[in-house]
Amino acid sequence: MLQGYSLPRTPDGRSSLAPRPPWHYTGEALAVEFRADAQAIAAYLPPGLTLASGERAGRCALYFCDWQFATDTGLEYLDPLSSQYRETILLMACERDGANVSFCPYIWVDQDLALMRGLIQGWPKQFGRTGMTRSYGMRSPAEPSASAGGCFGAALTFRERRVAEAQITLECPSHRLPDPGFASVFNVRHFPRLSAGRHDDPAVHELVQLRARDVSIENPMIGHASLTLFDHPGLELAAFTPLSVDQGFRMSVSLTVDDLQVIEDYTAQGR
Amino acid sequence: MLQGYSLPRTPDGRSSLAPRPPWHYTGEALAVEFRADAQAIAAYLPPGLTLASGERAGRCALYFCDWQFATDTGLEYLDPLSSQYRETILLMACERDGANVSFCPYIWVDQDLALMRGLIQGWPKQFGRTGMTRSYGMRSPAEPSASAGGCFGAALTFRERRVAEAQITLECPSHRLPDPGFASVFNVRHFPRLSAGRHDDPAVHELVQLRARDVSIENPMIGHASLTLFDHPGLELAAFTPLSVDQGFRMSVSLTVDDLQVIEDYTAQGR
Amino acid sequence: MLQGYSLPRTPDGRSSLAPRPPWHYTGEALAVEFRADAQAIAAYLPPGLTLASGERAGRCALYFCDWQFATDTGLEYLDPLSSQYRETILLMACERDGANVSFCPYIWVDQDLALMRGLIQGWPKQFGRTGMTRSYGMRSPAEPSASAGGCFGAALTFRERRVAEAQITLECPSHRLPDPGFASVFNVRHFPRLSAGRHDDPAVHELVQLRARDVSIENPMIGHASLTLFDHPGLELAAFTPLSVDQGFRMSVSLTVDDLQVIEDYTAQGR
Amino acid sequence: MLQGYSLPRTPDGRSSLAPRPPWHYTGEALAVEFRADAQAIAAYLPPGLTLASGERAGRCALYFCDWQFATDTGLEYLDPLSSQYRETILLMACERDGANVSFCPYIWVDQDLALMRGLIQGWPKQFGRTGMTRSYGMRSPAEPSASAGGCFGAALTFRERRVAEAQITLECPSHRLPDPGFASVFNVRHFPRLSAGRHDDPAVHELVQLRARDVSIENPMIGHASLTLFDHPGLELAAFTPLSVDQGFRMSVSLTVDDLQVIEDYTAQGR
Repeated sequence: MLQGYSLPRTPDGRSSLAPRPPWHYTGEALAVEFRADAQAIAAYLPPGLTLASGERAGRCALYFCDWQFATDTGLEYLDPLSSQYRETILLMACERDGANVSFCPYIWVDQDLALMRGLIQGWPKQFGRTGMTRSYGMRSPAEPSASAGGCFGAALTFRERRVAEAQITLECPSHRLPDPGFASVFNVRHFPRLSAGRHDDPAVHELVQLRARDVSIENPMIGHASLTLFDHPGLELAAFTPLSVDQGFRMSVSLTVDDLQVIEDYTAQGR
Repeated sequence: MLQGYSLPRTPDGRSSLAPRPPWHYTGEALAVEFRADAQAIAAYLPPGLTLASGERAGRCALYFCDWQFATDTGLEYLDPLSSQYRETILLMACERDGANVSFCPYIWVDQDLALMRGLIQGWPKQFGRTGMTRSYGMRSPAEPSASAGGCFGAALTFRERRVAEAQITLECPSHRLPDPGFASVFNVRHFPRLSAGRHDDPAVHELVQLRARDVSIENPMIGHASLTLFDHPGLELAAFTPLSVDQGFRMSVSLTVDDLQVIEDYTAQGR
Repeated sequence: MLQGYSLPRTPDGRSSLAPRPPWHYTGEALAVEFRADAQAIAAYLPPGLTLASGERAGRCALYFCDWQFATDTGLEYLDPLSSQYRETILLMACERDGANVSFCPYIWVDQDLALMRGLIQGWPKQFGRTGMTRSYGMRSPAEPSASAGGCFGAALTFRERRVAEAQITLECPSHRLPDPGFASVFNVRHFPRLSAGRHDDPAVHELVQLRARDVSIENPMIGHASLTLFDHPGLELAAFTPLSVDQGFRMSVSLTVDDLQVIEDYTAQGR
Repeated sequence: MLQGYSLPRTPDGRSSLAPRPPWHYTGEALAVEFRADAQAIAAYLPPGLTLASGERAGRCALYFCDWQFATDTGLEYLDPLSSQYRETILLMACERDGANVSFCPYIWVDQDLALMRGLIQGWPKQFGRTGMTRSYGMRSPAEPSASAGGCFGAALTFRERRVAEAQITLECPSHRLPDPGFASVFNVRHFPRLSAGRHDDPAVHELVQLRARDVSIENPMIGHASLTLFDHPGLELAAFTPLSVDQGFRMSVSLTVDDLQVIEDYTAQGR
């Protein structure tokens, strides 16, 4: 009997690109809130989600994250190459049954293991390279302080072109988290068919709501931010051009993922 | 309406990691035939395939490939970063209803676009780095001749460890292709569920047979070969340790993929 | 006694980043001739070289190259990771004692071994990622023909930003090579001092002329070309903005390097 | 006049791979002390250094470092791609005029800017990929505590092969730093000639002593360690096989480099 949560499935099941959940994550995030053209970005929402209204209309946030991963064995973090990765996540504010929620039109990651775990959650992951300034807690001209006045840079490159650049200057501890945020994220799980005549009839196509547990946010800081997005021939980013840039954030994050709620099965609806 | 053959799905559909088929491939392959312990590798076969018998028992082949990709627009090959990649493919001989076929227990690729197209075909793709000696057709101490006497090296690295090394010394044009080969490959398409309680109940789990068309093989050469496989903590390669190494091959290849035949739906069988 | 042509020097001398010459190269090149503002680029020439005059004033060429390397042992090409690399080379036309020669203001390579060999020759090498369309000699929608009508793309990325993009459509065999070319290249060998007070007093600072031998060019093709250069915060490329783009080329190249002529020792001149 | 501390030298001097000193560094280090065969490693010392005696005979340390870099402008750290890199440093205990000092036979770095700055200091830098477990200060199964009991992994890969693996379990704050350490490091600055007949007559060949200033070490922790070295065809590491592994360390480090002392000029001695 072949074993394994994902391909490759093997006799011992030790080869799966995505191991069996739970999946534990710990890391650091920089985020920039901004506002895009609400009508332009509405077209990126899947059925079942509606554009945010009022104050949240057109609100987006770009997150730059530095992650370390482990399963329950806890051994993965001793192999830094397999357990560490960076990603950039674009969230847009939206609504589901009148509640304030988030949707992710684009996400970029730099590792195959994270890509596979992401696809299973409906994150539309592609490869991209994320950079983030670090603070090591030293007094040095080579690093910012992690407190008021510290300035952090972040950047994303996709297929050899710079796609996003941000700077965040910390001002004070934050009493709130960025919005749109991760408290209520909806994704679309999607897995196509390749059989002739069924290319428009995916095997999996469902609206899902993420369920993270044991979420912990430490030392959230807020401050000034700048953000520039550059469109790319392989992306459709023009709709997300920032009309205004709001606050920037820096925080430490840990969480666990081993569940997901399927909200709508589009395949059952004849799409 | 969101468009796109795969995630990310967007208003214009230009962002999909896997574009709509057909998918055209052209490239160069080095291959080494070898024999592993037939009983040990039997455990890697999914239901519906049986171990090769007689002369084919335990037969395997490792392919190192250098690919360039395009859709019908043909524009992708002008952007070499997106269209070029290398992969290493392990095939094992097996049978389906008494016919000689192949199964792929492991495959390694170095690009996210190829990974996504592969998963859709059931290839159990993970990231790995493949290297292959080139011949530019010059008389130089820095390259082998592409004819008799030319010696080509190939290697695979997976998560920072060397996993395979091969050398092939060409002898003469070949009247046959390596066995196991690509004429009849079976894969397992698999996409897990993450909802609590359903981690062992994949959304997609089916035995499929690949259907490539317009397959062309040019200038196949055959010769001596050596091959070493090194096991890896994240793989289960020991069963494939070569007991003997047979012939080596070099050839140019082109093909098109836009179909796939589903042979068995394991999910419908209560697994 | 420590052995080795370059650091690291060790008891057996097998660890040197640059092995003892001769260095044999074989590969493929795409090139685009263009014309920049002659006065603007004059400032990039070192003492001893003067700007090209007449028809050659402001002439530049950008070369994209795919190389395989070996020493006399010829074994390196069996280890593709060590022996293969890609580079992009910017040459500008200039004169030395009235003769038509070339100077290289910028060059980008993707491998440490090539970087070290380059520094020793005075090439001002930095890391950059070069991509080039390939032709495998197959009839496939995924590749251009290597003959008339074939269209090849090339691109350079430096520190996560796209710096150059070119396309070349082949028209016919060429009776000439691109100008400025490699027949007579001058570089500046330079190795700084770090001792306090001597940062402006390099240990090595000399004008040199490259000496390649056994140079062979096969199948040079000429055709239409387009070229775009993008300036970068870490470069000074604006002066090289193409005012007009001339011909494009594709060719195979092999050569050997084991000598160099020192033309002027700037350190002896009190700089 | 061309400007720049290193190649490429340009009109504005903004393109130099190594910028003008001072060079400020901040980061995190894991280190493992071990003992190798004193006679075997003696052969790696350059003239002017002698093997450590008594208790220090055969002592070595392997450092894994995660760095962020800036010049006096302090702007580099806002561009993480240019300013961040990782390296692995092998130090061996030795003596100079009876004093306890260190020598570096091998060092591996993952970035061209750090490679160039290193060569100028005499570090025998080559490319290698270093991984190090991180602690983000969260309570998570995906990270170790940075205090007693926390276990950190580190690994080095050189040209696609794993070369070093270490684990360090922290026990308590340390009252000492690893030995051999960075307080007194000797390197060999070396820059070859390529002119025919002078391949054995380097242009620069001198024993130097590093001079770092503003060195700060914070939170040094000591604990148990394990270490495995794997030899590589392009290295000569067998002499450094650990006979015993001593303590492991973790610490934060910052320092500034803008000076260097030349101790012996081997070229003046006719070698």
